[in-house]
Amino acid sequence: MTGKKDIEDWWSTSIIDMEPGKIAFRGRPVEDLIGNVGFAQMIWLMLRGELPDPGQARLLEAALVASVDHGPQAPSIACARMAVTCGLALNNAMASAVNFLGDVHGGAGEQLVALFQSIDAAGGPPAVAAEIERFRATEGKYIPGYGHRFHKSGDPRAPRLLALVDELAAQGGISGRFAAIAREIEAHLGKGRARPVPMNIDGATAVIFAELGFAPPLARGIFCLSRSVGILAHAWEQMQQGGRNKGPLPPDYTWTYTGPET
Amino acid sequence: MTGKKDIEDWWSTSIIDMEPGKIAFRGRPVEDLIGNVGFAQMIWLMLRGELPDPGQARLLEAALVASVDHGPQAPSIACARMAVTCGLALNNAMASAVNFLGDVHGGAGEQLVALFQSIDAAGGPPAVAAEIERFRATEGKYIPGYGHRFHKSGDPRAPRLLALVDELAAQGGISGRFAAIAREIEAHLGKGRARPVPMNIDGATAVIFAELGFAPPLARGIFCLSRSVGILAHAWEQMQQGGRNKGPLPPDYTWTYTGPET
Amino acid sequence: MTGKKDIEDWWSTSIIDMEPGKIAFRGRPVEDLIGNVGFAQMIWLMLRGELPDPGQARLLEAALVASVDHGPQAPSIACARMAVTCGLALNNAMASAVNFLGDVHGGAGEQLVALFQSIDAAGGPPAVAAEIERFRATEGKYIPGYGHRFHKSGDPRAPRLLALVDELAAQGGISGRFAAIAREIEAHLGKGRARPVPMNIDGATAVIFAELGFAPPLARGIFCLSRSVGILAHAWEQMQQGGRNKGPLPPDYTWTYTGPET
Amino acid sequence: MTGKKDIEDWWSTSIIDMEPGKIAFRGRPVEDLIGNVGFAQMIWLMLRGELPDPGQARLLEAALVASVDHGPQAPSIACARMAVTCGLALNNAMASAVNFLGDVHGGAGEQLVALFQSIDAAGGPPAVAAEIERFRATEGKYIPGYGHRFHKSGDPRAPRLLALVDELAAQGGISGRFAAIAREIEAHLGKGRARPVPMNIDGATAVIFAELGFAPPLARGIFCLSRSVGILAHAWEQMQQGGRNKGPLPPDYTWTYTGPET
Repeated sequence: MTGKKDIEDWWSTSIIDMEPGKIAFRGRPVEDLIGNVGFAQMIWLMLRGELPDPGQARLLEAALVASVDHGPQAPSIACARMAVTCGLALNNAMASAVNFLGDVHGGAGEQLVALFQSIDAAGGPPAVAAEIERFRATEGKYIPGYGHRFHKSGDPRAPRLLALVDELAAQGGISGRFAAIAREIEAHLGKGRARPVPMNIDGATAVIFAELGFAPPLARGIFCLSRSVGILAHAWEQMQQGGRNKGPLPPDYTWTYTGPET
Repeated sequence: MTGKKDIEDWWSTSIIDMEPGKIAFRGRPVEDLIGNVGFAQMIWLMLRGELPDPGQARLLEAALVASVDHGPQAPSIACARMAVTCGLALNNAMASAVNFLGDVHGGAGEQLVALFQSIDAAGGPPAVAAEIERFRATEGKYIPGYGHRFHKSGDPRAPRLLALVDELAAQGGISGRFAAIAREIEAHLGKGRARPVPMNIDGATAVIFAELGFAPPLARGIFCLSRSVGILAHAWEQMQQGGRNKGPLPPDYTWTYTGPET
Repeated sequence: MTGKKDIEDWWSTSIIDMEPGKIAFRGRPVEDLIGNVGFAQMIWLMLRGELPDPGQARLLEAALVASVDHGPQAPSIACARMAVTCGLALNNAMASAVNFLGDVHGGAGEQLVALFQSIDAAGGPPAVAAEIERFRATEGKYIPGYGHRFHKSGDPRAPRLLALVDELAAQGGISGRFAAIAREIEAHLGKGRARPVPMNIDGATAVIFAELGFAPPLARGIFCLSRSVGILAHAWEQMQQGGRNKGPLPPDYTWTYTGPET
Repeated sequence: MTGKKDIEDWWSTSIIDMEPGKIAFRGRPVEDLIGNVGFAQMIWLMLRGELPDPGQARLLEAALVASVDHGPQAPSIACARMAVTCGLALNNAMASAVNFLGDVHGGAGEQLVALFQSIDAAGGPPAVAAEIERFRATEGKYIPGYGHRFHKSGDPRAPRLLALVDELAAQGGISGRFAAIAREIEAHLGKGRARPVPMNIDGATAVIFAELGFAPPLARGIFCLSRSVGILAHAWEQMQQGGRNKGPLPPDYTWTYTGPET
């Protein structure tokens, strides 16, 4: 054994402490948590190091509930269902599908929390126009979290989530300043358009994550926890339906071939 | 368009109904669920088609809380941490790690719920000895859910979970017959040994899943939801710690080479 | 440091030996391999511990070439393309897609090599009828490797692969007895049918893997290497085409909802 | 059926054309490819649309051979071995491991090919100093492809690969200008240091990919194909060794806990 470094130092964590017969998360014995804290509170404890107050827990729970599923047309859900017909167990189907929640499918919240934070640092709602211009110049013209290609006149999840945000802000549980920023962005994006560009689920949950003080990457991480529920439910339903090697379309609808003649 | 089958029939689901501006899960509009049901209840609704009663929800929640994490020595957790040092985003790190929850790491609960059900069908506790003999002949000598290589004198999570099971059974919320089967197995496995072979986390959560009427594969599926929380928390902690291409051991501890001489 | 076991012993391998400035695979310095062995030979060396002779290498190469792709209707290929539209990098898209090559999509070869071996052990072609009966009783009624739902009158890859097998068998490079078994199965499955049930790509490559002495799980493993090429090519093509969150069907074709009324 | 778009148009590809009984890749019937082109040539055809000449094929093959494996200390290899001990099949173990080849573990080549191309566009070797300054200002101070934390005095794979590049350049098969750029970077990075910072495997293969005209993302993609071989070989070796839930270190070496007291 010639290593210069103690092996025990190679991995270190403040999340979990263990000895034979003992497990503690963030300094709390597991047996005190089981039966006493809800799953959403446990998620908060694991990610943040302390337990949320009831208002915070309820808001996080709303975000977790809202994003579970968007049907077999969502790539993540289709992936899980197809995976099962290839013979995969539920954990493997979930893995392929959660993997899909990348920058485009699962990253909107992360980008938007970061944008909210930079607008907040620049002075809040009055800084929206300038910060959006900056975002478009550096990140891309598409502002994540607004508009929806399917729910064209409005995503039914967003107003309900925002109502919960407003309720908690009115009680002083959160500041409400990220909700104000988000609404100012909505107004800004709708200017001069016949039809507004309403906040969608990614926008509304980003407000929640920003209000609750989550770092931007956790917007994506928490979305993964939420969507995993729908992924699992669809994978399990497909397992019960059966089907083998089910592709995106029935086998007699193929694809457009654009290559050289054979 | 020459297909013989309507494309809309290619995917079908009873989980989610959608139209522009409308999303409903299991017949319930999403805006009625947000803010009114907890995350554990939502998981139940998505998997089972109806909402649980409060006792059922609390027991499911306990199982979800108990299994989130077993430290950087657990392959799933190590996987997530290593993944992040390879430059992966949280969704990708979670995917590689959830994939790990296969037959050995995540399948114990699934196998055990199935065993509990077959013992129950064969008459309950008196059938334990015969059913274990059958299991060993067909599935392998190792009975999942009992004993622990690290928590040798007992897994601290199991007694707490079983206390919650007993509490709900005493209230008539569940039958308690799977807890009785599980304890009979424990007694059977300990016969003639100096040291008992106590139920571990997989055993205790399998009791919960069986009591609540979940199909065996969902024992694995729900474990994936629970462990995803620890996976995310460790991935995020590692992201904050930094580190590049971190392997299992420090680079100056390598491996034993057993091949031909060079 | 209190471990009872030397850390260096925790991982051991006969595949690779390394010291600073030195890398050797199966006892051969990497600089002797680079430029001197082909990729298919290297695959053989890594999996088997020695280099193949030219006939063996050519046959393995034919199997690797034949299975790369079956178009955007194959779940693995669709998965890779969808993944890219969710914002995944090529490695992540490849991961989700290779994961799909499970028991149903990628396991046919593995099951078939095992069946070939058990028929061989039972005496070869004369044992086909009895072994198929046994297989159907224990493994399922579907014999993998024969028939094709798309190429109904025959998979164009199979006869070409079998011609190469016959050629090498005629030269004495392989025994040819697994090809004989495979053809006897084909004859057996076609008995009393108006239309034969011809060997497909999985059947023909299984003959190759069995003739070359690969263990059954490697039939799946080598298929994964081959299909990874098509997966990568389609992921890359989709990346160049663009598209965001592309589901299986256009968004205005949804799915059949079979759940309760909202 | 109310869609505005023909379903057949939803997926399109120039890679593969298929009809029942017919498969053609890039306009070439599969039966003409099997037995006539090597696996490395097939990779090129699938990615580029045409077959390489023999010099190009040999150079690509050298890159594919060189990167297959870097031992159980490489996160990708450790991942595959750990996955198998969790009960995963080979395809699933490969998926988790290939997923690891992200920006840090598998992205060096991609970044470096892009840097080579920008130096080339800026005038070649004389532009190295300015372009490296620009890279460090925008991408990060670490120049990928040079130096190695394990092979401190030089990666044995790099000189051999560069010798093959020089050989083909001398024959006029490639221009050699990316090799010149890469060597100028090496000289630049070594200036004023006691010890040079030699090109490593990522640097040498990036030279090959740039010389052969591959787009930067394909440097990562082709590395994934290569490393998949080592991943498969180690997963298979671990499957034969056995082991259950094997974590990074033996269970009696745990981790450093840095959280609050329990």
